[in-house]
Amino acid sequence: MTDALERYLADNADRRIASYLEFLRIPSISAQPQYAASVREAAEWLAGQLRSIGVEHVEVAETGGHPVVYGDWLHAPDAPTAVVYGHYDVQPVDPIELWETAPFEPFVRGDRMIGRGSADDKGQIHIHLRATEALLATTGALPINLKFVFEGEEESSSVHLDAWLEANKERLTADLAVISDTGFFEGNRPAVTVGLRGICYIQVDVTGTAVDLHSGQFGGAVQNPANALAQIIAALKGPDGRIRVPGFYDDVAALTETDRAAFAALPFDEEAYRTDLGLPALVGEAGYSTLERRGGRPTLDVNGLWGGFEGDGAKTIIPAHAHAKISCRLVPDQDPGTIYELLRAFILEVAPPGCTVSVQFLGGGRPSLTPIDHPATRAAARAIEATFGVAPVYIREGGSIPVCASFETILGLPVVLLGFTPPDDNAHAPNESMSLANHETAIRTVAAYWSELAALPR
Amino acid sequence: MTDALERYLADNADRRIASYLEFLRIPSISAQPQYAASVREAAEWLAGQLRSIGVEHVEVAETGGHPVVYGDWLHAPDAPTAVVYGHYDVQPVDPIELWETAPFEPFVRGDRMIGRGSADDKGQIHIHLRATEALLATTGALPINLKFVFEGEEESSSVHLDAWLEANKERLTADLAVISDTGFFEGNRPAVTVGLRGICYIQVDVTGTAVDLHSGQFGGAVQNPANALAQIIAALKGPDGRIRVPGFYDDVAALTETDRAAFAALPFDEEAYRTDLGLPALVGEAGYSTLERRGGRPTLDVNGLWGGFEGDGAKTIIPAHAHAKISCRLVPDQDPGTIYELLRAFILEVAPPGCTVSVQFLGGGRPSLTPIDHPATRAAARAIEATFGVAPVYIREGGSIPVCASFETILGLPVVLLGFTPPDDNAHAPNESMSLANHETAIRTVAAYWSELAALPR
Repeated sequence: MTDALERYLADNADRRIASYLEFLRIPSISAQPQYAASVREAAEWLAGQLRSIGVEHVEVAETGGHPVVYGDWLHAPDAPTAVVYGHYDVQPVDPIELWETAPFEPFVRGDRMIGRGSADDKGQIHIHLRATEALLATTGALPINLKFVFEGEEESSSVHLDAWLEANKERLTADLAVISDTGFFEGNRPAVTVGLRGICYIQVDVTGTAVDLHSGQFGGAVQNPANALAQIIAALKGPDGRIRVPGFYDDVAALTETDRAAFAALPFDEEAYRTDLGLPALVGEAGYSTLERRGGRPTLDVNGLWGGFEGDGAKTIIPAHAHAKISCRLVPDQDPGTIYELLRAFILEVAPPGCTVSVQFLGGGRPSLTPIDHPATRAAARAIEATFGVAPVYIREGGSIPVCASFETILGLPVVLLGFTPPDDNAHAPNESMSLANHETAIRTVAAYWSELAALPR
Repeated sequence: MTDALERYLADNADRRIASYLEFLRIPSISAQPQYAASVREAAEWLAGQLRSIGVEHVEVAETGGHPVVYGDWLHAPDAPTAVVYGHYDVQPVDPIELWETAPFEPFVRGDRMIGRGSADDKGQIHIHLRATEALLATTGALPINLKFVFEGEEESSSVHLDAWLEANKERLTADLAVISDTGFFEGNRPAVTVGLRGICYIQVDVTGTAVDLHSGQFGGAVQNPANALAQIIAALKGPDGRIRVPGFYDDVAALTETDRAAFAALPFDEEAYRTDLGLPALVGEAGYSTLERRGGRPTLDVNGLWGGFEGDGAKTIIPAHAHAKISCRLVPDQDPGTIYELLRAFILEVAPPGCTVSVQFLGGGRPSLTPIDHPATRAAARAIEATFGVAPVYIREGGSIPVCASFETILGLPVVLLGFTPPDDNAHAPNESMSLANHETAIRTVAAYWSELAALPR
């Protein structure tokens, strides 16, 4: 790291925190239509930042949904080109009552930036902004060519991204894609993610009568949609943690001995993990370790369920309807469309009589595995070690970044997952936070990574 | 019916609708603490009405919860004394969005009074008010002695009523209790209810972590409280409609051949019932008819369930907790306390590992069967036939009026269930309504009933 870069970063420390806070204050929740204007505001803010630091061809590009923010810097003719991806949209804030402070009034406490999006994923976009700014301000150039693609629909299933990538294939020609939407390992140990799960997200709606019924007058004579929903959910997974949907595991690539050895080699204190979560026990699919269950095996989780009376006291009704949001995390080579069809058929098959059951597809994404041995992955490991002072571990992460598979298949690019959030970041939960030490060091890591890539034999 | 009474009722028809509307406008929801002042306002309104029509010793009596409104008229020394019971509290209004109009802005449409409480149970109290008023206004006296006990906690499990009855035993000496909180049979056929189910109402809370978890980062490694809740609920009842809680049926008095013949003899069009409800099929406990299932057999119904994300779109979390309100309707000789203990033990036994499950008792009431052959029951049948023009059927109603058992056991009184609501009244549901024809005729029925009781050999 050059002295000039360090000096620039030191001189601009306060301004950096201020711009980070400014970005987090925009409530860019992509899944809830009432926030659409804020999502666009975040896109415009981001475009303004890119322009102000010297990125060119900056554009808030229409997609049919929330926009993509594009910008590039292409003045390193002999160096490789990377597409840099992050997303500026954030998760909804429910349950709002569990936030210590308002989710969109971010603040710093100790080493943490607290607020929705501080980690997932505005914080990581901000790392790229400030790294690019510092390089251009101190050297007038970047070591490699960059094409920024910042999405606004990652938290609502990236509905329009694939079509946009397809339509912009020419413009997005590159040597690799760098996706910054992952994090470090337990104990905040630097990591490079080499596997991501896919997802298939559905909603199940069970309907009985047009209005709630008096549970005394009608109880016993009619199906109860809430009981029926519980039966359906219970039928989906066995007590052994195995998903009971016929065909669900057909396309699952079994973990090899090498895979299992890699999981087993990771430093992981299962008891500390359990204690941190405050759980009486860790449970999951029989025959697999905790790390395998969350990184290498598919899941089926209820994300939300509701129906009937939720208030204080006792309301004696048979609910007119009941609902559940359910998602499966997928592993290679499961396909979200196929899994949806299997889920739907099984749910309709096990649905109890006397009510109407429907199943909607709310979104999906393919799983992916990225190559550990790719020179660009190795270069990322060197940049991390040079800046964080420790070699990263290679992990398979349980989350889903469907765009990863899109970059691979639509743009034909190898993908490097370069992300910096700590594992206790409360992403998707109340009191989301980002380690400021990670954020600050990561700015140096990104700068170092571009130099590492520039130095690779072409 | 005397001409004077008919004339009085005709002359006061408009005023009667106005006072009915006035009563319904007070949002006396007893289960929700924020309505406590309105519950008291309804009690005061009722006490004012009783005083204004000539009822004596009127009192808004403290119970430790919502008050009991008491009043009496005791100037018929040679005639019997009846305790008249109704409740002035009402159910919550959720789901509010399904009401065609505001629940506490009642109005008349055709033959219906529409609004929360129009049927259950303010409308029936109003029948008693106006019958008493008409008799006192036209004759200066009542045929029998009456002691009015109007409760404010029926829809929140009558928590304080038993203690109040116990403490007021002396004052409540009588020959019988008349409870007006039941209704007519299918097709609005006049009926006398001779059986009521009891109830045991619980809440199940399933807790995992302190905050929601990212379903990608943690999915597969931890128990999901919403999945666990579904498993618990599904375990409570089999596909044959039998409740699987060990011991649940131990105290159930089996239906006798006579009981079953009485159910079979009721005029009931099952296909019309199903069509009116808009259901694809009627389902329930194997081996029993629809009428037996709702009148003579116990139930287990989810009244509400919730946990995790309920909004639009896809939020990828493992909910921190999930909850269900569950109630069982009970039949003789089941005891709510015993059933609670059985439910609790079984739920804790079937609770999946990796989460914390707790079970709360939210309220209970004993089932009851009242004697068909009692002279006071036969007198009620005569009063109904004289005014509605058709002999009533005798029915076992699926609902619960726990106070029925309290009058029997605490006060030692035979109970007559004299109620007038139509079966399609949407009690406990949106758009609750009362037949005005029933309401008007029932005023005459009540007046006739007091005369029938006065004429009984003592």
